[in-house]
Amino acid sequence: MKSEILAALRSADGYVSGQELCEKFGVSRTAVWKAINQLKQAGYEIEAVQNKGYHIVSSPDILSKTELESNRKTAWVGEEIYYFDSTDSTNTRAKRLAEDGSVHGTLVVADEQTGGRGRRGRAWESQKGVSIYMSLVLKPEIDPNNASMLTLITAMAVAGGIEKTTGLECKIKWPNDIVVHGKKVCGILTEMSTQMDYINYIVIGIGINVQNESFPEEIREVATSLRIESGKKQKRAAIIEAVWEEFEKYYDIYLKTEDMQGLVGEYDQKLANMNKQVRVLDPKDPYEGTARGITPKGELIVDTWEARKLVSSGEVSVRGLYGYV
Amino acid sequence: MKSEILAALRSADGYVSGQELCEKFGVSRTAVWKAINQLKQAGYEIEAVQNKGYHIVSSPDILSKTELESNRKTAWVGEEIYYFDSTDSTNTRAKRLAEDGSVHGTLVVADEQTGGRGRRGRAWESQKGVSIYMSLVLKPEIDPNNASMLTLITAMAVAGGIEKTTGLECKIKWPNDIVVHGKKVCGILTEMSTQMDYINYIVIGIGINVQNESFPEEIREVATSLRIESGKKQKRAAIIEAVWEEFEKYYDIYLKTEDMQGLVGEYDQKLANMNKQVRVLDPKDPYEGTARGITPKGELIVDTWEARKLVSSGEVSVRGLYGYV
Repeated sequence: MKSEILAALRSADGYVSGQELCEKFGVSRTAVWKAINQLKQAGYEIEAVQNKGYHIVSSPDILSKTELESNRKTAWVGEEIYYFDSTDSTNTRAKRLAEDGSVHGTLVVADEQTGGRGRRGRAWESQKGVSIYMSLVLKPEIDPNNASMLTLITAMAVAGGIEKTTGLECKIKWPNDIVVHGKKVCGILTEMSTQMDYINYIVIGIGINVQNESFPEEIREVATSLRIESGKKQKRAAIIEAVWEEFEKYYDIYLKTEDMQGLVGEYDQKLANMNKQVRVLDPKDPYEGTARGITPKGELIVDTWEARKLVSSGEVSVRGLYGYV
Repeated sequence: MKSEILAALRSADGYVSGQELCEKFGVSRTAVWKAINQLKQAGYEIEAVQNKGYHIVSSPDILSKTELESNRKTAWVGEEIYYFDSTDSTNTRAKRLAEDGSVHGTLVVADEQTGGRGRRGRAWESQKGVSIYMSLVLKPEIDPNNASMLTLITAMAVAGGIEKTTGLECKIKWPNDIVVHGKKVCGILTEMSTQMDYINYIVIGIGINVQNESFPEEIREVATSLRIESGKKQKRAAIIEAVWEEFEKYYDIYLKTEDMQGLVGEYDQKLANMNKQVRVLDPKDPYEGTARGITPKGELIVDTWEARKLVSSGEVSVRGLYGYV
């Protein structure tokens, strides 16, 4: 009920009377009073004025199930939310939940990861209280061959969600990083379990640097946070909500054709690599060229001096030739 | 040590003296005596003759870690073996082991499954003591797009392994069933976890009907067991070993080109559907035609009255037009 009361206080114009809350949720005044007190203890500043009612003055940047649920406006993402103060890795959690029958749209959020992972099993730095670590469970009836494009969809959603909440301009470093002012603020790790021709489930993991005030020397040139770039603290729950609202929008367009057909133009506008020199780290034959956007199948178009090449997110990394992007 | 003693007794021509066993394994006579007694208790008939030594008269059809290890001659399959008298599903077990870091070649075998699964989550009947339920963990560095052919490789290995141990002629019903005399004796369920472009692991599950003496009315027309078809009891551990020896052989050939190029001829010889009428259950547009073998990419070639079609194991089932195959 805390989530509902919080949502009611947030959406109210001025004060909400205790009586109103009692009637709305069919509970006693004592129950309302208890819930309000718990919210105060969790860090929400709630004013109570006699004969007027309750009024929310400010909410801190906290993550909790209550906070996430009270912010939720999405249609199906987050219908089930699992929140952890600390977990090994939200992707690992989400995979286990998916194996055990959790539904399409299940969302896992953690305030800290003790075993965060990036691509190819690389470690992902996961401090407590400063970043967003979250994973979404999908169980779509699509061709497994089309699933890798969901990483691109997610990148668009993260870029859009951050822009909407912080006003920062976000670009996508194909295929799975989000950059602000040329530095990385977010990585995406999409994992999939299939019966070869049939998808058991997909898990999309997102890590976003939010409140970090600085980064270790060795990554300072390439990594940044939303706080550093915007110069102020941000609210993670609001960003999370905005990301998934964007995601639902792009996902619907993707599902129509199971590819990027309806999204190429918008994607290319967000593409950090656009018209930039890139180095394609093909293990057999690395080469350089100019990135020219994506194809409807989500491949990166790279013009080399001799030919146009299409890079699928396969066994290949793409690096900026001058700097991170 | 029981596995090693069992293997030594099996490979010996006549009697093996206790002294020999002591020296070979660097243990005391009491330790050898204890191990022999445990083997007897497990059902092995071992004769002990004074001044001659030990001699194995017969071994029952039992599954145990000892039995599996003592039979093992493969190079890397089964380097780690997990045996369960009963488990939910060997694929589920194998997936969990793979997630937790188990190595390429880890083998899971169970005498009973309480939640056996077939394709698309269908239940798989899994009685105790009569069948083979096993799953192999692979962590290969191959293109995820080429992984579905591992089902075909496994089908060849199962067919070959059963033929070698029982003498029964085995055919493959593309893509993942093995048939004897036109009835199903084995199903294969291949599952994969990827990071889209990178394989975390593959799990190949195999279920083989071995000792079943009869089947329920509703599947009697399509299902059979090795015992029914050969008219005698079979040893599951021997079949398991033979299957994986065959698997290693075919897997090596597959790895060279990451496809079926070097195996098409042999596969087609084993193909139960070869030159038969099949119905391709394409959800959008089902059609009928004559199966003509597989392509180097593992697709089934089907000639319809108007065109040659290539069926990938995608969203498609293939049914025999006259009977199960």
